[in-house]
Amino acid sequence: MIKYYSINGEIVPKEKAMIGIDDLIVTRGYGVFDYFRVFNGKPAFIEDHLDRFQNSAKELGLEIPYSRAELTTKIKEVVAANEMDKCGVKVILTGGYSTTGFSPGTPNILMMVSELATYPDSYYTNGIKLMAYQYTRETPYTKTTNYLVPIQIANEIKEAEAMDVLYHDGTYISESARSNFFIFDHNNTLITPDRDALKGITRKQVLAIAKDHFNVEVRPLTVKETMAAKEAFMTSSSKAVLPVRQVDFWRINKGVIGENTKKLMRLFEEHLEQYLANH
Amino acid sequence: MIKYYSINGEIVPKEKAMIGIDDLIVTRGYGVFDYFRVFNGKPAFIEDHLDRFQNSAKELGLEIPYSRAELTTKIKEVVAANEMDKCGVKVILTGGYSTTGFSPGTPNILMMVSELATYPDSYYTNGIKLMAYQYTRETPYTKTTNYLVPIQIANEIKEAEAMDVLYHDGTYISESARSNFFIFDHNNTLITPDRDALKGITRKQVLAIAKDHFNVEVRPLTVKETMAAKEAFMTSSSKAVLPVRQVDFWRINKGVIGENTKKLMRLFEEHLEQYLANH
Repeated sequence: MIKYYSINGEIVPKEKAMIGIDDLIVTRGYGVFDYFRVFNGKPAFIEDHLDRFQNSAKELGLEIPYSRAELTTKIKEVVAANEMDKCGVKVILTGGYSTTGFSPGTPNILMMVSELATYPDSYYTNGIKLMAYQYTRETPYTKTTNYLVPIQIANEIKEAEAMDVLYHDGTYISESARSNFFIFDHNNTLITPDRDALKGITRKQVLAIAKDHFNVEVRPLTVKETMAAKEAFMTSSSKAVLPVRQVDFWRINKGVIGENTKKLMRLFEEHLEQYLANH
Repeated sequence: MIKYYSINGEIVPKEKAMIGIDDLIVTRGYGVFDYFRVFNGKPAFIEDHLDRFQNSAKELGLEIPYSRAELTTKIKEVVAANEMDKCGVKVILTGGYSTTGFSPGTPNILMMVSELATYPDSYYTNGIKLMAYQYTRETPYTKTTNYLVPIQIANEIKEAEAMDVLYHDGTYISESARSNFFIFDHNNTLITPDRDALKGITRKQVLAIAKDHFNVEVRPLTVKETMAAKEAFMTSSSKAVLPVRQVDFWRINKGVIGENTKKLMRLFEEHLEQYLANH
């Protein structure tokens, strides 16, 4: 059970982890975050997550109050306090207490530990369905806390019997709400969008693994190509490699998970185990 | 000096007004708000603000924990606690504590009292400059807490020596970051955009006043028409009617505030005084 969070580096009981309502993350939705899984005290691919977190902060003109080494130590401290074999950690950097109600103050840094999200086995054996939705995130390359649109349309997604959305702009696919998207075409080329998509850490790792086994293309991906795909899957820190069997009414590979995707699922798990063994 | 805020209807010292960091307004930017001015304990145009607040909540699928009458009482209580002749009040409805980290919980309602924003007299006598910026808010008819983009470009606005932005989509003008936008054309017709613009309360009041004095059109407004305007101004609860003398490099009416705008500034002040006298 989660007992502790951390506020500005201080470990506090979860129920006392609070911030003042003047913080710009409350009043103006101004903040960035990152999320990663931790196994036996080891945060997976932490270097990549810290790179992205620092970049997100920079994009919003916010200064992280710690060095990278200090940040890593603080993360490990809050994980250790909760005494869990595995967990998720969310690190949020806020816009800070504003004197004007609009301009950023000194950022607050929040660390939240959570149970690892678990998804039904059937998601991985049968694949999941996505609902296509025309939308582009305002700051697609920055991991901000803005999730207004996907939360607002949650009922629509549920009614479509989909697990999540697949964002597009009418012509090009970008990403899912909290995951990256990939297809294999009929030449077994792996393709993932480069435009309007977050630079996911699992995406990065999967691309690195895949290049030894497949032809890989990182480039604009059209809706048409996706409809004609041989296989499809999504990636995220919490979902790893998750097969996609259907987008709206188009079934991919007749709704059967492809062999290439199965291979990447296995290779990614091995890669993660190797990472953890070496760190 | 502001001493008290209110959290879920309870008056608390400002420095103790806090919420748990699990609230969806912190983790996912999910929340709505409204803001109004209060004079001698009387919230200006409160019925309109509560209408909009209730509508914003509905748009995000959030339930306000009070009836309208209770909400009004709670607002007056926190205003009275601060013993100020005039002040601003922001009422925020949050996405609430989420068990999943993504789906809304029971909303928290936050009330923040502030000193009234004051702008230099020169803004009203000489008008202000806006910086044109291509952007459409994600949920333009809902008053959400998402102000990522205008805060992120604050330095750009400052470097342009502008006071604020004027959003457009390449063809049509929509609104400013926290204000509505109006022009007078050379036939003295008052025009304000109807698309992608928040239904401002001062906008509503100004439109109601103006129709006895001018031909009024609420319709799509092009960038071209704005460049050729005879006069321009913006409206908001904190700014009332504020003349615009320039957008980027185009000076409106050679940079001189027009007589129609002056008339509306005066009429709005009289209208507000009358409202307060009758409530």
